[in-house]
Amino acid sequence: MDEFELIRRYFDCATDVDGVVVGIGDDGAVLEPTAGKQQVNVIDTLVEGVHFPKGFNASDIGYRVVAVNLSDIAAMGAAPRWMTLALSLPAADEPWLEAFAEGLHAAAKEYGIALVGGDTTTAPQVVATVQINGEVDVGTALLRSGAKPGDTIYVTGTVGDAAAGLDGLLHGEPVKELLNRFARPSARVTYGQSLIGIASAAIDLSDGLYGDLHKLLFASGVGAEIDMACLPLSDALVEHYPPERQRKFALGGGDDYELCFTASMSPPDPGVMRLSAIGRVTASTDLVCRLDGEIVPFDDSGYRHFR
Amino acid sequence: MDEFELIRRYFDCATDVDGVVVGIGDDGAVLEPTAGKQQVNVIDTLVEGVHFPKGFNASDIGYRVVAVNLSDIAAMGAAPRWMTLALSLPAADEPWLEAFAEGLHAAAKEYGIALVGGDTTTAPQVVATVQINGEVDVGTALLRSGAKPGDTIYVTGTVGDAAAGLDGLLHGEPVKELLNRFARPSARVTYGQSLIGIASAAIDLSDGLYGDLHKLLFASGVGAEIDMACLPLSDALVEHYPPERQRKFALGGGDDYELCFTASMSPPDPGVMRLSAIGRVTASTDLVCRLDGEIVPFDDSGYRHFR
Repeated sequence: MDEFELIRRYFDCATDVDGVVVGIGDDGAVLEPTAGKQQVNVIDTLVEGVHFPKGFNASDIGYRVVAVNLSDIAAMGAAPRWMTLALSLPAADEPWLEAFAEGLHAAAKEYGIALVGGDTTTAPQVVATVQINGEVDVGTALLRSGAKPGDTIYVTGTVGDAAAGLDGLLHGEPVKELLNRFARPSARVTYGQSLIGIASAAIDLSDGLYGDLHKLLFASGVGAEIDMACLPLSDALVEHYPPERQRKFALGGGDDYELCFTASMSPPDPGVMRLSAIGRVTASTDLVCRLDGEIVPFDDSGYRHFR
Repeated sequence: MDEFELIRRYFDCATDVDGVVVGIGDDGAVLEPTAGKQQVNVIDTLVEGVHFPKGFNASDIGYRVVAVNLSDIAAMGAAPRWMTLALSLPAADEPWLEAFAEGLHAAAKEYGIALVGGDTTTAPQVVATVQINGEVDVGTALLRSGAKPGDTIYVTGTVGDAAAGLDGLLHGEPVKELLNRFARPSARVTYGQSLIGIASAAIDLSDGLYGDLHKLLFASGVGAEIDMACLPLSDALVEHYPPERQRKFALGGGDDYELCFTASMSPPDPGVMRLSAIGRVTASTDLVCRLDGEIVPFDDSGYRHFR
């Protein structure tokens, strides 16, 4: 099976997503943007041995590389439309490819987007890059830079689960519910769109709540106080880890792919999804964590490449 | 230097390219598509040790990863607008990054496009993926599928140089003019746009003329006869290699990033660029190579991943 057969067999699926004039199989895809919309463009890479352990479930890798990009789309309040895939892997391992493609197409279907192009190459380990184009009404995209002193800081879902799940896997004691949050993150795409006109700033949580909130605050030129008692923790995290580790995973663990946003008005109804107010934007430029009123020093252990 | 400082230092450049509402530094870029245009989306990856030798000049890698994508844009007849970059590398090697960024920005400037977003990660070797969005008037994109029996087959520039240049490098005898064609390919973006309404089908030459022309013919459901005496060879290729190797590089060598297209009418004036008619589209589905009227069997040695 060469590259062309590989693409035909695993990635060239018929799609009923609107606006795909020419999909996979030419030098490029031809697409119909929606008139009067601005476009949002995101790209994110997962590297074997860096973002997931060697031998990790291929279907989850396929799902996850789409979801982490959709999470960026969600943080901009955009509606995702099309994606491209650049996939490097050591060999055309058919069971692996079939599983990877199944996960990728499952995520694409769940969020209503089409795979319109890509490139497959050889490399010593798996490197999967997905790029997504989304759309927003002109001038409405959610940015990191609009937080104002007095705004409330919100977080969707629960935080720390993915990092705890991965930690359990690496130590040979995976907790299924936690690991599943690492393997199949929920991109908050619909909720992100509902925040337009309401959130003053937004970011998705890929490197850990503390580090990512810090980026939002820095971009907005403000600070914050967060109440660690308000951090949204899952039952599984609370059950399996002592309080200090819960907080460490919740603040410093990455890969949650929840949204963190600021707003001065009431946020939209989150439905069945959990939504938590965790603190308030301040006029300083510090990010202060409090527990029972006392300041708790936090060492930002959010993952940063090259640090 | 962590990931954020790396991006700020090397990739977050001011741009005067139109339509960039929000560039690098948020969860995604916000862009203004041109009203009434269709979009063309391409993505391509270069892997160290696969697409270029370990230790290859970083500035050339940066230039080349943009140029190979622009070549796909050119083959669609599109005008390139914005690009994103996913870059994996073993360490934040500052001289390497500075050179890579210099080459990347040089290509972006030469072709008038903006880097609007990206992702930098660690990996055991360099993996550089660029994705470009271009634009075309509705319904005018050049495809691989429109070649008709009787059309003339054209090739821009010269073919075989890049493969010969790389071959020389790998054997310790690089020929500067040939290697430069590998390191700094010319994407035929302007000429590609001038082919709209004239070319019946087009493809860019990344895997070798024989293999890429075969893809065009297959997509069009036709065959071709090409005259090997008409293959456009550079003086440097002719000077340094015997005739049989010249033809092998010209037909089977990849990385030329020239355009191959078919047309029933006269092609636009190529200016200083060489343009050669190399054969004719036939109603069969075979690709036949002739030299002095005799059929020459050709073993397609165009590079294919996973073969």
